[in-house]
Amino acid sequence: MGNRPLILVTNDDGITAPGLRTLIKVMNEIGDVIVVAPDSPQSGMGHAVTVDSTLFVETVEIDNGPQIEYSCSGTPADCVKLAKNQILNRLPDLCVSGINHGSNSSINVIYSGTMSAAIEAGLEGIPAIGFSLLDYSWNAKFEASEDYVRSIASNVLKNGLPEGIVLNVNIPKLDKKDIEGIKICRQAKAIWREEFDKRKNPQGRDYYWLTGKFVNLDNGEETDEWALKNNYVSVVPIQSDLTAHHTINELNKWKLND
Amino acid sequence: MGNRPLILVTNDDGITAPGLRTLIKVMNEIGDVIVVAPDSPQSGMGHAVTVDSTLFVETVEIDNGPQIEYSCSGTPADCVKLAKNQILNRLPDLCVSGINHGSNSSINVIYSGTMSAAIEAGLEGIPAIGFSLLDYSWNAKFEASEDYVRSIASNVLKNGLPEGIVLNVNIPKLDKKDIEGIKICRQAKAIWREEFDKRKNPQGRDYYWLTGKFVNLDNGEETDEWALKNNYVSVVPIQSDLTAHHTINELNKWKLND
Repeated sequence: MGNRPLILVTNDDGITAPGLRTLIKVMNEIGDVIVVAPDSPQSGMGHAVTVDSTLFVETVEIDNGPQIEYSCSGTPADCVKLAKNQILNRLPDLCVSGINHGSNSSINVIYSGTMSAAIEAGLEGIPAIGFSLLDYSWNAKFEASEDYVRSIASNVLKNGLPEGIVLNVNIPKLDKKDIEGIKICRQAKAIWREEFDKRKNPQGRDYYWLTGKFVNLDNGEETDEWALKNNYVSVVPIQSDLTAHHTINELNKWKLND
Repeated sequence: MGNRPLILVTNDDGITAPGLRTLIKVMNEIGDVIVVAPDSPQSGMGHAVTVDSTLFVETVEIDNGPQIEYSCSGTPADCVKLAKNQILNRLPDLCVSGINHGSNSSINVIYSGTMSAAIEAGLEGIPAIGFSLLDYSWNAKFEASEDYVRSIASNVLKNGLPEGIVLNVNIPKLDKKDIEGIKICRQAKAIWREEFDKRKNPQGRDYYWLTGKFVNLDNGEETDEWALKNNYVSVVPIQSDLTAHHTINELNKWKLND
């Protein structure tokens, strides 16, 4: 494949999603692209992996681009594992996931299939980025995202990433001319306030739809929520060490062994 | 319900799992127990939530304990959301998840349904603990776990937890007399090395089973892997802020806006 970087592309909205097609288009400009993406939407899958079921993979041709594409029956994290272990003959130089149709800012990162693929790639030693556009529509406009995706991906290829770190990139739903630039941020503290929609099925049995309202609890100007609200593209470096190191001393005072 | 603490119990192995039954038994000693657990095993589900399908919940009676039990068609995170929003009439004093049949130490935390329930409870403002026994067998022996579960849960009820922090507790597969005690730890750096098992289905189509080997990359004596290997119960405080704060200065040197 010559001296061009090898780029693995995946997502969680499924292999036909317009956000993925945009990501492939931009990556084709800067490297040799292999796509391994879910055959159906996987949103809200968190960091799920398929341990209790079989995985199918097949080559597909969706547009006439130069990329090679595989459709996989598993989750985004499965796609990355399968790509590395069964499809690619060397470690890719970059893994990009997205462009997600909808936000993965702040607490959304822990529910996000898009980011789980990036985090999985990071664990496998692959520099990785998840991209998301703050527009949930299937027909979202990804034009303004292209330059930011190209710039951030090129910078990661040039500079590498600190060990074990992946980038969570969110792009505001704005025309290019209205975006102020890129900001490195921390994850804002936020939650979803659930509002279950309770209904009865035709047999009279209760069921629920999970809905909810995103609530930002953090007014810090160094957060991704602030950046997005102020028309910046947010970039949050993400790690897979979940230890709350600052609480270890406090917990040791409990004398659990007495 | 008087002055006894209200305790929400859930898991990811499903409502009939022996590990959950043990956890219910111990919690019945210290509080009033409501169980909301998946109706089928959800291992490896990560922090999945059900956004594209309906959720069913029904009361069930599985043993003759005093607890009240609900079986839910969703994921562990769904169970916690539903419990808080539709089942409980006040915020519980504690949420416990498990006892998982198998380890959730080190990197397993990000794939873990058990821990996703605890993390979700933490986000909802409920002090929460995930318990796991290092024995994948359905017939695992949970006797030695009972005292540690009781002690750690009682301490959390007494002391509370720092805001946004939940505990990831792993218990070695040992007789009580061989367990050295409890250690507060950080998450070890470790990965799964995948070894996909490739097969052909009866129609000749390739498919894969995901298998793998856990590889600890971290010899630190302050890690959960060290503690478990040296016969301690490991307790890791876990946060949902994934920001790699220490890398923000470095990323700002990239001058992404030039």
